[in-house]
Amino acid sequence: MARIVMKFGGTSMAGTERIRRVAQIVKAQAEQGDEVAVVVSAMAGDTDRLVGFCREANALYDPAEYDVVVSSGEQVTAGLLAITLQALGCKSRSWLGWQMPIHTDGAHAKARIGNIDSAALLASMTQGSIAVIPGFQGLTEGNRITTLGRGGSDTSAVAIAAAVKADRCDIYTDVDGVYTTDPRIVARARKLKAVTYEEMLELASVGAKVLQTRSVGLAMKEKVRVQVLSSFTDETAANANNIPGTMIVSDEELEKMDVERQLITGVAHDKNEAKVILTRVPDRPGAVANIFEPLAQANINVDMIIQNVGRDKGETDVTFTCPMADLARCTDILENRREKIGYNRLISDTKIAKISVVGVGMKSHAGVASAMFSALADRKINIQAISTSEIKVSVLIDEDETELAVRVLHTAYGLDAE
Amino acid sequence: MARIVMKFGGTSMAGTERIRRVAQIVKAQAEQGDEVAVVVSAMAGDTDRLVGFCREANALYDPAEYDVVVSSGEQVTAGLLAITLQALGCKSRSWLGWQMPIHTDGAHAKARIGNIDSAALLASMTQGSIAVIPGFQGLTEGNRITTLGRGGSDTSAVAIAAAVKADRCDIYTDVDGVYTTDPRIVARARKLKAVTYEEMLELASVGAKVLQTRSVGLAMKEKVRVQVLSSFTDETAANANNIPGTMIVSDEELEKMDVERQLITGVAHDKNEAKVILTRVPDRPGAVANIFEPLAQANINVDMIIQNVGRDKGETDVTFTCPMADLARCTDILENRREKIGYNRLISDTKIAKISVVGVGMKSHAGVASAMFSALADRKINIQAISTSEIKVSVLIDEDETELAVRVLHTAYGLDAE
Repeated sequence: MARIVMKFGGTSMAGTERIRRVAQIVKAQAEQGDEVAVVVSAMAGDTDRLVGFCREANALYDPAEYDVVVSSGEQVTAGLLAITLQALGCKSRSWLGWQMPIHTDGAHAKARIGNIDSAALLASMTQGSIAVIPGFQGLTEGNRITTLGRGGSDTSAVAIAAAVKADRCDIYTDVDGVYTTDPRIVARARKLKAVTYEEMLELASVGAKVLQTRSVGLAMKEKVRVQVLSSFTDETAANANNIPGTMIVSDEELEKMDVERQLITGVAHDKNEAKVILTRVPDRPGAVANIFEPLAQANINVDMIIQNVGRDKGETDVTFTCPMADLARCTDILENRREKIGYNRLISDTKIAKISVVGVGMKSHAGVASAMFSALADRKINIQAISTSEIKVSVLIDEDETELAVRVLHTAYGLDAE
Repeated sequence: MARIVMKFGGTSMAGTERIRRVAQIVKAQAEQGDEVAVVVSAMAGDTDRLVGFCREANALYDPAEYDVVVSSGEQVTAGLLAITLQALGCKSRSWLGWQMPIHTDGAHAKARIGNIDSAALLASMTQGSIAVIPGFQGLTEGNRITTLGRGGSDTSAVAIAAAVKADRCDIYTDVDGVYTTDPRIVARARKLKAVTYEEMLELASVGAKVLQTRSVGLAMKEKVRVQVLSSFTDETAANANNIPGTMIVSDEELEKMDVERQLITGVAHDKNEAKVILTRVPDRPGAVANIFEPLAQANINVDMIIQNVGRDKGETDVTFTCPMADLARCTDILENRREKIGYNRLISDTKIAKISVVGVGMKSHAGVASAMFSALADRKINIQAISTSEIKVSVLIDEDETELAVRVLHTAYGLDAE
């Protein structure tokens, strides 16, 4: 007997027919004698509909009332899944965010989960009732509804798995696991049996959007074993020995698993970044802070930062990337501060892609980065910028060369399926 | 300064454009310096959509989970109205059923309101914040969401008006008041300035569906002054001296108002009843109880009951009416008990209409009923059954003669507008 938290996304919950399919997967899990809690998203498209209403009502909507409106989508699917499970003969009830409650801070529309009162929930689960919990929502100290921000249901699932000390948190989605790279680009991409939290974090942050980044960070912190698997195939998680998806676990646990380790776990790409260059920035203390402090205050997530040597002494070119969606705000802020920063020109470019190779294996192997540069150079792919972490090397290239670069690297690191 | 509860139905809340119109009406009320609470229905069609999901999920759905699903419709409109009021510069917040809370019994999908904790709500209202409250919902002692049954938002509004000791409860709907009869049948129908609770109850129970019957009963019990008015005209309740709708008040208060009283207040019709005749029922003690006890247990609302003298001694024909929607269940129950009841034939007829004249004035005037019978006889309209209360006379006639009968009676009692 195990205690399992299962999470189903909006595509899996889109309509009563699909909810019935989800209920069958949940029932199969419960029939193994497992204690089961299910976290659900709103029906695909429903949250967009509700957010649209709020925007129509007032472009500058009150986030506290926005949370009242948009949290209703998950409330609907939670009730419907409980009803459907009952139709299949299962004991089940819904537990809304305010009923447990799932305590959060007061940052409406982007709240962070604090403590979860899981005693009543657990008592109900141990009596054989399947708990159905709307994802994405919580409760402030002041008794108001909060939501966690888009994609927050993954985070809800992991937080609940931590609170009830679940043996596993199964995230059902529309892909059947984590791949060595995007299978739409590389036909010989392989599904990974397991990756570490760190690798998943790096992969998620560079465009492999299987899981919400926050949920992976939380799983790592709380040591929750997460599995990504598909709700659209017949391989369900029901047979835990035959792992159908990809396990996301700690480094130590990965070592124990019978998984062939590669130097590189995966190759990811991200076309949603923009490049900004500021030319002839004064090369003096505080100059770079003048650039990035206002961007941080505006909550613009700057990623790669490169400082080039300028043509003249005492000056330098600064290059960085930010999400394309933030580019307009970013250039706005910098143009307003041109005098203060003292740069010459602001050049932005959205026709770029970030290609990353990720793998815990590179910690103990030198030469991963240089192998990457050589492989790209062999195909005449120009590298515009480089950034590295302990388990990741990212380069910025021309967007048109994305697919070529991914294929070249996938082969170069020996990831192609046989 | 007054304290006003305003209630807006689903047609008034159907979409952000209409919600903006509602917000303007509410703002106009608040700008008079009044303390305002607003009770809202779900967008028209939304509750049907949610009920449809529940039925698709499981024909025998758990009413506790049904309540979780369907209560979300009012949650959405409450949040959106608060956001829209803020856009107009008003202070406002939503108060969900579980937040106040509005305590109800545990009868899911048809709960009854008990105590309402209005202290925090009142404190907020007296500080100038417009309270927006989703109608139709409440909370059980066990912390589960309940709903009050279809049309329950009227009842929510009256209950909240009673709890906050409101000066008036304004029910905004798609008609601009209560008329002497259906204006679609009688062009010279007149809008009434005021009716008593008792009259409204009788009018509502015989087909004038302006207000939910339960809400009128509650208003009478709690002495809440109710006004029915339209949200689609420009005559808002903003000017309390110039009453634009119909006031529903106690008999004593009506006396104080400068309203011309008629013998009869209105003529109502109801085509949604069916007639059932059981022939040759044994004329012995307990025989009639054998018929109506099982119907009561099945929650079938039997209205008119007439016992005719049968052809043979020791036997009698029993005629009664019930809602057309319950007819199939009703005949099912009676056919299963044919032996026990001992009747000969069961005859049902749905081609009937109930015509009622209602008025507090008839308490002190004899001859109201006989005037009705004469007026109908003059036009050769056959009366199939009669029932009377202190302030109402109802007759059952052929459905085809409904409009004729209503017009004849409207003229006969001098209700036609000049």
